[in-house]
Amino acid sequence: METTTHRHGPHSAVTPAEARAAFRAGRAEPTAGWADGRTQANLIAVPADWAYDVLLFAQRNPQPCPVLDVTEPGVSTTPLAPGADLRTDLPRYRVWREGRLVAEPKDVTRLWRDDLVAFLIGCSFTFEGALREAGVPLRHVEQRRNVSMYVTDRACRPAGRLHGPLVVSMRPVPADYVHTTRRLTARMPAVHGAPVHAGDPGTLGITDLARPDFGDPVALHPGDVPVFWACGVTPQAALMTSAPPFAITHAPGHMFITDALDAAYRLL
Amino acid sequence: METTTHRHGPHSAVTPAEARAAFRAGRAEPTAGWADGRTQANLIAVPADWAYDVLLFAQRNPQPCPVLDVTEPGVSTTPLAPGADLRTDLPRYRVWREGRLVAEPKDVTRLWRDDLVAFLIGCSFTFEGALREAGVPLRHVEQRRNVSMYVTDRACRPAGRLHGPLVVSMRPVPADYVHTTRRLTARMPAVHGAPVHAGDPGTLGITDLARPDFGDPVALHPGDVPVFWACGVTPQAALMTSAPPFAITHAPGHMFITDALDAAYRLL
Repeated sequence: METTTHRHGPHSAVTPAEARAAFRAGRAEPTAGWADGRTQANLIAVPADWAYDVLLFAQRNPQPCPVLDVTEPGVSTTPLAPGADLRTDLPRYRVWREGRLVAEPKDVTRLWRDDLVAFLIGCSFTFEGALREAGVPLRHVEQRRNVSMYVTDRACRPAGRLHGPLVVSMRPVPADYVHTTRRLTARMPAVHGAPVHAGDPGTLGITDLARPDFGDPVALHPGDVPVFWACGVTPQAALMTSAPPFAITHAPGHMFITDALDAAYRLL
Repeated sequence: METTTHRHGPHSAVTPAEARAAFRAGRAEPTAGWADGRTQANLIAVPADWAYDVLLFAQRNPQPCPVLDVTEPGVSTTPLAPGADLRTDLPRYRVWREGRLVAEPKDVTRLWRDDLVAFLIGCSFTFEGALREAGVPLRHVEQRRNVSMYVTDRACRPAGRLHGPLVVSMRPVPADYVHTTRRLTARMPAVHGAPVHAGDPGTLGITDLARPDFGDPVALHPGDVPVFWACGVTPQAALMTSAPPFAITHAPGHMFITDALDAAYRLL
């Protein structure tokens, strides 16, 4: 058990409710490796008059924006995590005004508005359990880092007033495991699915892996290939370029931990 | 070639553009078996102020309502079929006012409005090619009938003002092929995916297979099992119960034939 705990990270055995309670109480750290087997989600909450744009953006860009749930306006609960409050139960938030990041609080209760519609978007952390089970090392968990995320030179398909670049997460994968990694993640389209690219970062317009746009740098071991997946931070990049008057999101890597089982998002 | 044409139906070899041209010229018949290998889609067009409800309904009910494309308001073209016009290129339409079916014309050019948003929804015809390739007989094609569709006693998850029952299509499948049928269609979640049920129609609240709510009755051969899939007519049932002021849809079974390849919607 000690070994298992170590291999999976110190918080792998906590329940989703315990994790959310810790974050509600003020703990603030990236959630990779927390609550093994439970689905983590990106949050993006916008005023109701922007909700159609966000939902259509997600429909047109399903790989970076797989929608797991959408709340009614003003509602901060979700059937994916009974008892949870979206305003308090994430470790850290980002608050956006006119496309500018204005705060990164640990609680947004006083900022929540009656007209906010919250979108929960699938997260690549969900497929990490499947990778680990198949023996694929997770370098960012080993290194106790947030996953690396990069803004690419690929544009998402715009929707209404929303437009922006594709953001990707990167995991170093030993070359012999790249095929397995592709096969396993292709089965989980609700959490970004197959990689968008493996290999040369320049193909995506990424100039320096050591300088991610979000998250932490993660070191590659000799023989590792950088593998890139569409990332749920993509809607945040769209907020930055499209500048709705107000929005609240999770801070990158600081996800909402739901009660849903990762395995439920495996297709086959 | 003669044999192939016969087995696949007389219109299997036409191109999508030829099919659309025939329908534009006034031909009106169900599209099952037309333009082999090309994706067919359900149409639902609503005023822009209902578009969020429809899109959220689709997000919350992805099995009956897999969205393939959404147009901008007033636009009647789609990247899924360059050169096509959604107002003329389906064999038959349905026009709805306050939830009541008021007309079934072959052309809706004069009824189209500047504020209409059109949704193209995946159709189970898309997976029929995969079934045929695996040797699964398609009874409705053999019998030159429209597929049978039934309103079930299962409620969809509502979204805003939209609510209604799940509608299913039914195909008789020889018992030995039910497993294969399930496996093949599970790989195509964008076109309804795995069956929702196989066997006793009563489980879905269907009392008489010989009296479908939409489409034609299709005879089961001895040893056939009725297999049910979530159906893209579900949004039409929601229109009937939710009564938006105006809507245009395809007539059941009379689909929009896109240029997209069915194979593109196979996940693995």
